[in-house]
Amino acid sequence: MRLPLNQRVAILLHEGIKGTRGKTGLSLLRYSEAPIVVAIDRECPGQSLPELTGIRRHVPIVASVSAALEYKPQVLVIGIAPLGGVLPDDYWHDIKDALAAGMSLVNGLHAPLSTIPDLKALLKPGQMIWDVRKEPPNLGVATAMARTLPCRRVLTVGTDMAVGKMSTSLELHWASKLRGWRSKFLPTGQTGLMLEGDGIPLDAVRVDFAAGAVEQMVMRYGKNYDILHIEGQGSLLHPSSTATLPLIRGSQPTQMILVHRAGQTEVADGIPIPPLIDVVKLYETVASAGGAYPKVPVAAIALNTRHFSEAEAKAAIAQTETETGLPCTDPIRFGADKLLDAVMQN
Amino acid sequence: MRLPLNQRVAILLHEGIKGTRGKTGLSLLRYSEAPIVVAIDRECPGQSLPELTGIRRHVPIVASVSAALEYKPQVLVIGIAPLGGVLPDDYWHDIKDALAAGMSLVNGLHAPLSTIPDLKALLKPGQMIWDVRKEPPNLGVATAMARTLPCRRVLTVGTDMAVGKMSTSLELHWASKLRGWRSKFLPTGQTGLMLEGDGIPLDAVRVDFAAGAVEQMVMRYGKNYDILHIEGQGSLLHPSSTATLPLIRGSQPTQMILVHRAGQTEVADGIPIPPLIDVVKLYETVASAGGAYPKVPVAAIALNTRHFSEAEAKAAIAQTETETGLPCTDPIRFGADKLLDAVMQN
Repeated sequence: MRLPLNQRVAILLHEGIKGTRGKTGLSLLRYSEAPIVVAIDRECPGQSLPELTGIRRHVPIVASVSAALEYKPQVLVIGIAPLGGVLPDDYWHDIKDALAAGMSLVNGLHAPLSTIPDLKALLKPGQMIWDVRKEPPNLGVATAMARTLPCRRVLTVGTDMAVGKMSTSLELHWASKLRGWRSKFLPTGQTGLMLEGDGIPLDAVRVDFAAGAVEQMVMRYGKNYDILHIEGQGSLLHPSSTATLPLIRGSQPTQMILVHRAGQTEVADGIPIPPLIDVVKLYETVASAGGAYPKVPVAAIALNTRHFSEAEAKAAIAQTETETGLPCTDPIRFGADKLLDAVMQN
Repeated sequence: MRLPLNQRVAILLHEGIKGTRGKTGLSLLRYSEAPIVVAIDRECPGQSLPELTGIRRHVPIVASVSAALEYKPQVLVIGIAPLGGVLPDDYWHDIKDALAAGMSLVNGLHAPLSTIPDLKALLKPGQMIWDVRKEPPNLGVATAMARTLPCRRVLTVGTDMAVGKMSTSLELHWASKLRGWRSKFLPTGQTGLMLEGDGIPLDAVRVDFAAGAVEQMVMRYGKNYDILHIEGQGSLLHPSSTATLPLIRGSQPTQMILVHRAGQTEVADGIPIPPLIDVVKLYETVASAGGAYPKVPVAAIALNTRHFSEAEAKAAIAQTETETGLPCTDPIRFGADKLLDAVMQN
């Protein structure tokens, strides 16, 4: 399942456009091919989305679902992704308004909404609630069999959560397609699933089946593609992170791309980001596990320079290359070709 | 919740006593203070449990629940733990017989049994089904706050699954208590939960909340104890393993103990166990994450020598000490004092 391309979409983004928790909605606004007709954020109605976010899509911002109805949306997507995935209390009113107005609902939060009687009662024929973060059925445990696939498997890994791993994997995927390769982007988070389908919501999978879910996904597509771009999750540096390890074990990557936000020095209060070359070593050590698995290189570094000017971005990229000896670029800003060249050389 | 100490227990262990999947039942037979009155295994009825397993508890072995009834059991525990946690088809008949005969059921497998209508229909007042592997309510994400606790936090880590991490943590806990310390064993798997309660079934927790569940457990007890012994799960070397990383991040261990089965050379088909000193480095690298977290030493090595003679065991221990430079013993065979001394010196 993915976000339908023939239905008009509204994105519920209260305090997400200017704030820090709007990752899902903003990524959809940046990347989705679906017709997004309106964004809803009570903090900034009437303001310009491109000016606030740099996203080049002209979508009006309104304060509520009622105000959004004039744009005739058919689907409401909950566009925030708070840490832990709990729905804020002040979102309920808008969600009920949307269902009462005949819209379907796409929910990427942990709490399933399709089973709540109050919401189910509002559904009329043709309306549905899609809870994206639901453990897939028929999972097993992983056996490292992705090693047997002939394709390249490129996994993005990060110094932190929310630094641009999905975007980097998407850019690598598009660059691969432009080169005429059979390329597949494999999403592992709710936003990627809304954009592309064909993946897994890894953080909703039980620990015992996490690597197995990744392996199942990679095995399903690996035989028919030249290169798989596996969306990374979390960070080996983040105190709450668990997802990186099953991604490495389940996908058995042939290369990793390290994603980092330029200038960021801590992953959380008091937890420093070590020099990038040490982070590279950490990921390579875990991937090869002292010799239990083949060596997997971090082939290049994707630098997120969104908050920098172009000159500052270029300086940060040059500095990162000097410090690490690895090719580096900002794939959102300058394209992913440099990263892809590095993948092919490894 | 834990296994009640005032009820007569039967353990369902078909193909588990001589086979490889009886870990839960055999650990209960080895360690539980509950009155276990009969074990059920159709492969070896009438045979001697001590002779088959080395466990010093004289419990009769019978072929079925019907045959077990003469020992008047009140609780049936499913004692097998197959990889992936699925109930074998040929177990259903015995489970239904037990419920029909008035017994309660303790289930450590992934599939919840308490919600199955056929089984619920058999329950009479006073009878219950305890699904041990259930995600606890009210979880959040971890923040590394266990770092602030003044107590020691000793985590067992392994070269493989099922090598003796729980047993090592239990032995360390008892040795700590004998020294007069306020010590707590914190189980993270179904067997430990049946034995001691007060823990979490980590492999049933969703990836997003895994480290948070560990942190919550450690924070709940850390202030009132001198030393916490946290039961390890999985292995950074195992292809299906995910649980070790959230255990490290959530518990913020002060020391680790590496558990290894003497003589084992592969974790799975074609995946070698590297030299132990490299495995030690791997765990220490992940725990400190290149400087993001304080250094956490692997203080000692617990060697599982169950399949060796005493002379062979002593030789293997001496060789491990020479190879790694770390203190080593088999805590089941020779007690955990040497390991505990090493924890205190670090």
